[in-house]
Amino acid sequence: MLALSALQAAIQPVDATLEPALRAKLDGKAKPPGSLGRLEDLAVRIGLIQNRLDPRIGRTDLYVFAGDHGLTHEGVSAYPASVTAAMVGLFLSGRSSVSALAKATDVQVRVVDAGVDADLPEHPDLIAAKIRRGSRNAAREPALTPDEVLTALAKGADIARAAAADGADVIALGEMGIGNSSSAALIMHRLAPASLDDCVGQGTGHDAEGMARKRAGIVRAAERSDASAPLDVLAQFGGYEIAMMAGAVLGAASMRRVVLVDGFISTAAALAAIRLAPTALDYCVFAHGSAERGHPAMLQALGVRPLLDLELRLGEGTGAALAAPLLAAGANLLTDVAALADVLAGPG
Amino acid sequence: MLALSALQAAIQPVDATLEPALRAKLDGKAKPPGSLGRLEDLAVRIGLIQNRLDPRIGRTDLYVFAGDHGLTHEGVSAYPASVTAAMVGLFLSGRSSVSALAKATDVQVRVVDAGVDADLPEHPDLIAAKIRRGSRNAAREPALTPDEVLTALAKGADIARAAAADGADVIALGEMGIGNSSSAALIMHRLAPASLDDCVGQGTGHDAEGMARKRAGIVRAAERSDASAPLDVLAQFGGYEIAMMAGAVLGAASMRRVVLVDGFISTAAALAAIRLAPTALDYCVFAHGSAERGHPAMLQALGVRPLLDLELRLGEGTGAALAAPLLAAGANLLTDVAALADVLAGPG
Repeated sequence: MLALSALQAAIQPVDATLEPALRAKLDGKAKPPGSLGRLEDLAVRIGLIQNRLDPRIGRTDLYVFAGDHGLTHEGVSAYPASVTAAMVGLFLSGRSSVSALAKATDVQVRVVDAGVDADLPEHPDLIAAKIRRGSRNAAREPALTPDEVLTALAKGADIARAAAADGADVIALGEMGIGNSSSAALIMHRLAPASLDDCVGQGTGHDAEGMARKRAGIVRAAERSDASAPLDVLAQFGGYEIAMMAGAVLGAASMRRVVLVDGFISTAAALAAIRLAPTALDYCVFAHGSAERGHPAMLQALGVRPLLDLELRLGEGTGAALAAPLLAAGANLLTDVAALADVLAGPG
Repeated sequence: MLALSALQAAIQPVDATLEPALRAKLDGKAKPPGSLGRLEDLAVRIGLIQNRLDPRIGRTDLYVFAGDHGLTHEGVSAYPASVTAAMVGLFLSGRSSVSALAKATDVQVRVVDAGVDADLPEHPDLIAAKIRRGSRNAAREPALTPDEVLTALAKGADIARAAAADGADVIALGEMGIGNSSSAALIMHRLAPASLDDCVGQGTGHDAEGMARKRAGIVRAAERSDASAPLDVLAQFGGYEIAMMAGAVLGAASMRRVVLVDGFISTAAALAAIRLAPTALDYCVFAHGSAERGHPAMLQALGVRPLLDLELRLGEGTGAALAAPLLAAGANLLTDVAALADVLAGPG
């Protein structure tokens, strides 16, 4: 496992001097310049990430990082924590939402047990990386120890680096963890930063009473710690799956792979990674704008715009699975479309 | 070939009483109700179109309808009309933008010669349906004869019905025709209806002088005829590829297939089809909101919202090719995701 400092050092900023050549190549294609709008921007981004004029997007691997949250003891979620483990089973059976969507877009889904509060049976698509059975209750004590944060980051980086070494062009992030929209809200609050009110949303769904409980639990956690440095924020508010996703962002970026970020919780993980290594932002593509309250402001804090706007608010990597084909399409613009000069020169 | 009246009669409205059952099925899935936002609406739409609770989207066939426009003699386009035939060659060689995108999304592209002003060599992916080598100049005379309109509609319907009979679940529309954003603007103007100013945009690109020429040519055509009935509007303003696309909408709808509409020009064709057979709207899914000026208002006139917003303004079916995987993903929600009750009842 790479130490965090080695990982941070391994992330190179993209070479912005390549951008004019990528733009010129697109402008020279047999179509009016700029007529493919944001897909052209995406093509440029992919070219910069792969540092070449002829990028290729073949394989997209989606990892669903799963973990439980002690903060659920405060009643922050409408669902019991046991749902996390049940959903892991559903992902592995191929009958979850993200499985169904990934099947339509030719994305491989694997699950990472970062900290599920259950003993999970072995499965070929399950990566056993459990750090602890559930995080501690962030309303009462730090959710993770500082060592656990570093371990989670390193394990996440290892998973992404192994996928990249194995041939994945895109590392897509998904997550499952009852209570993790509360963790993500606290991370956004401290690292965007933004007022707590702007960070707390419905999550997977709440009535008014449930929302009041969720807010109260989050406020208790926020009042317990004034953490603002990214490692400390991850330790104070967790959880394991979010810290491990942040590590995956760093690992993928260190291997010059595209990171395809899903919704609110994945973006909070990316935010933590970017605060640890700002150049990691160069490697991130944001799949969709979530219907979760805090997501637009978090994306704005990062200065990015997502590809899709379908009012999803599920997580699991569903938005990333839907956006995956756009990346291949963007890369194909650079490699598969004839140059206008060739069309004018030769027989059709 | 089906006569227009037979085609109109063959288009059944979808059975709206199925919608509650589709919604209930989605609400019973192992995810928070409504958490997949607009993808759930799309799943419902597909279920209604196929009239079943377990719809399937296997194959998407994209047809690029190509034709030339006499109105180009007024200087309405920044490109010479000869580009239409050159682009047909590029589509068939697989080196066009839509080819590159369709490759990423597993969509089959074929070209329909509806009225290209050139003799095109035979090709297995080219459907020879030419009505005339280019439409007449709409600024001076009707672009199409009334008989030509009916022939174009019937041929387009045949193409879509043959694709459906051959197993296509989705008929996606694309087009190529130098000058056709002017035809589409005139169709929108009369059939949305909307003021001409709101309908005329940049098309594939113009400087200020070019835009003034384009506007003047369009105004001359509009002043020549006060047509407002859909068949007459198609005859007055053309073109062959737009009328044939409108026929394809009707043909696909008559076979209960999803019609995936691309951008500004495809939407103008769908608008004409819907004015001829209002229930055809039930079968249309709008792929993307184009950057072309008139598109948002035309979509609004139809009361629809597109899936993607990527600031595309190329046509060719590029937006339809990008949106195609969303349809399969939507259908998969209904068929591939476990019911919550099953998850709670059995071992994961």
